[in-house]
Amino acid sequence: MAAMRVDGTPTRTIWPLANADAVEIIDQTALPHAYRVLRLARLEEVAHAICSMQVRGAPLIGVTATYGLALAMVRGDDDAALLAAVDTLAATRPTAVNLRWALARMQRCLLPLAPSVRAEVAWQEAARIADEDVEQCRQIGRHGLQLLRSASGARDRLQIMTHCNAGWLATVDYGTALAPVYAAFDAGIDVHVWVSETRPRNQGLLTAWELAQHGVPHTVIADNAAGLLLARGDIDAVIVGADRIAANGDVANKIGTYLKALAARANGLPFYVALPSPTIDWRVQDGLREIPIEERGAEEVTHVQGRDPEGRVVQVRITPDATGARNPAFDVTPADLVTGLITERGIAPASAAGLAAMFPDRVGG
Amino acid sequence: MAAMRVDGTPTRTIWPLANADAVEIIDQTALPHAYRVLRLARLEEVAHAICSMQVRGAPLIGVTATYGLALAMVRGDDDAALLAAVDTLAATRPTAVNLRWALARMQRCLLPLAPSVRAEVAWQEAARIADEDVEQCRQIGRHGLQLLRSASGARDRLQIMTHCNAGWLATVDYGTALAPVYAAFDAGIDVHVWVSETRPRNQGLLTAWELAQHGVPHTVIADNAAGLLLARGDIDAVIVGADRIAANGDVANKIGTYLKALAARANGLPFYVALPSPTIDWRVQDGLREIPIEERGAEEVTHVQGRDPEGRVVQVRITPDATGARNPAFDVTPADLVTGLITERGIAPASAAGLAAMFPDRVGG
Repeated sequence: MAAMRVDGTPTRTIWPLANADAVEIIDQTALPHAYRVLRLARLEEVAHAICSMQVRGAPLIGVTATYGLALAMVRGDDDAALLAAVDTLAATRPTAVNLRWALARMQRCLLPLAPSVRAEVAWQEAARIADEDVEQCRQIGRHGLQLLRSASGARDRLQIMTHCNAGWLATVDYGTALAPVYAAFDAGIDVHVWVSETRPRNQGLLTAWELAQHGVPHTVIADNAAGLLLARGDIDAVIVGADRIAANGDVANKIGTYLKALAARANGLPFYVALPSPTIDWRVQDGLREIPIEERGAEEVTHVQGRDPEGRVVQVRITPDATGARNPAFDVTPADLVTGLITERGIAPASAAGLAAMFPDRVGG
Repeated sequence: MAAMRVDGTPTRTIWPLANADAVEIIDQTALPHAYRVLRLARLEEVAHAICSMQVRGAPLIGVTATYGLALAMVRGDDDAALLAAVDTLAATRPTAVNLRWALARMQRCLLPLAPSVRAEVAWQEAARIADEDVEQCRQIGRHGLQLLRSASGARDRLQIMTHCNAGWLATVDYGTALAPVYAAFDAGIDVHVWVSETRPRNQGLLTAWELAQHGVPHTVIADNAAGLLLARGDIDAVIVGADRIAANGDVANKIGTYLKALAARANGLPFYVALPSPTIDWRVQDGLREIPIEERGAEEVTHVQGRDPEGRVVQVRITPDATGARNPAFDVTPADLVTGLITERGIAPASAAGLAAMFPDRVGG
């Protein structure tokens, strides 16, 4: 089941305009309260869109950066401009490695070319990366569906817990963690999703919005409720996405993921991570020690966005004025808590050997 | 360090008026945005104050109920009225056992008496229970301070994590989990508290407000951030309160407590639970199976209270309209994840044997 607009027409989360002078995105800072499309015509607008989380989700961040580079190529095409644009985009967010992977691929593709042809090739390569992301996510859905079929059957309704948003909004289409859920729903499996709201940015509410668009039954919970639900047998499996997977299988993902993994393990329940291979950082051997954790602004914790009684979208302050906040955006789940990695090639064990066996052509790369 | 008003004068969280026709409370649904005192003159107002969380925290709920019973005695004093008032108050909230303990004690005290003297004795007994709560919390602070002194020293600043509000707002004075923190601060220990916001009701912000009143350094985090902070060595100890402790040491406490206990254990860090003995339910042998978990309204998850840009306190809706929510208010942390129970008599191991040894006069009661 692919992404759709509020009017039910198919969409992607990012698309180039026909005359190659801009891309359009769905403004994810407006969701779930409003569906708004933003046009990005300049490198700086793309960098801002990534920093401010107008686009978010590791795969979509990567693809958005490639289009940003294509936009930069229109304006200046010498080597210095190319490398400066890569640096600008790479600096937007530190944890999701798809960003670095996509920019490195674009640089490898463009730098050997004559400056005069770079713009055209950049748009082609960005589109190729976007198409690959769609296909990878589709395959993740296909492989994940097999897992869900085997998890299903213990009770009438399959109960999945997820965290953050790893649906089509986090990718170009289909999603990572939600791709198997959509595939199961399409296959007629009675599936219900427990959606962790994912403070502080409440990306779980993007998941709720996505699932509501498609009619997939779901229920929002406070992040704190995950342990109880797992302990009392309300959940069959946890599936989350990832921002970066170390070569040893450690998983950097949205803050709070680690707590769910601990609770799943403590209760003998499967904890799956769904990811396209560009999320694997083959150069990081130990995720816990080496993956940089983005620290975002305190105002994401001290303030919450919602609709006031008149329906206006407002930011309200929830903390006392005298109180400060810290806001680490990701945590690292050790590989030994992960039941399996759902990739476009199939289910890999979360270990150095498991990843190397699934991606022998990539390991060390 | 005892409770104080915003003007710095000492207070308790509940106090009877001199002519015994009402009690006053601090309205905790207005905090941390406004400090407001409410007068409760009727049983129904007291029951509403407990249900709606104008008062909250297991010890304070118990004491509030005793005053509610005293107010009921003023109006009608036959046995049926007494028992009906007990039932009304007992039905307000299911998980915190202090409520049931306090009402049973009041009933045992009042039922044998002539109806004509019940009102006067009820006020005396309620005041006695309130005073005992204060003294129990003071002793918890004293015993907890010894723990914190031994935890301190590994680094310059002692780093404590807590969850929900188990400070003086949750009791009559001093608090449970925060009593040792206040004692440490008073003793000149450089202590800093990581305050988990505690969605959905954000009682962590009551903790932030309390700590700010007393000048105790603290930082608010999203509940999701607890695992990362514990994993990367930012925390020396976790201390939480409790709503009910089973005779085997299992701990029912605010939803999300269990996740912190799992993360503390996974990282070899101490996880303490602070409680006065009325929080122990000697009749429950297995907390995981027997303690009832209150399910509160979905609107606590779908809506958040805060101050809008004009400073008005508003409820904003954060979820899509089509999305429902579930709201279990407590979880149960198995005894084997608890490093120790900080009681008014000292630190007890979280086990049936540990509790029985600390309270040989109560076990089975």
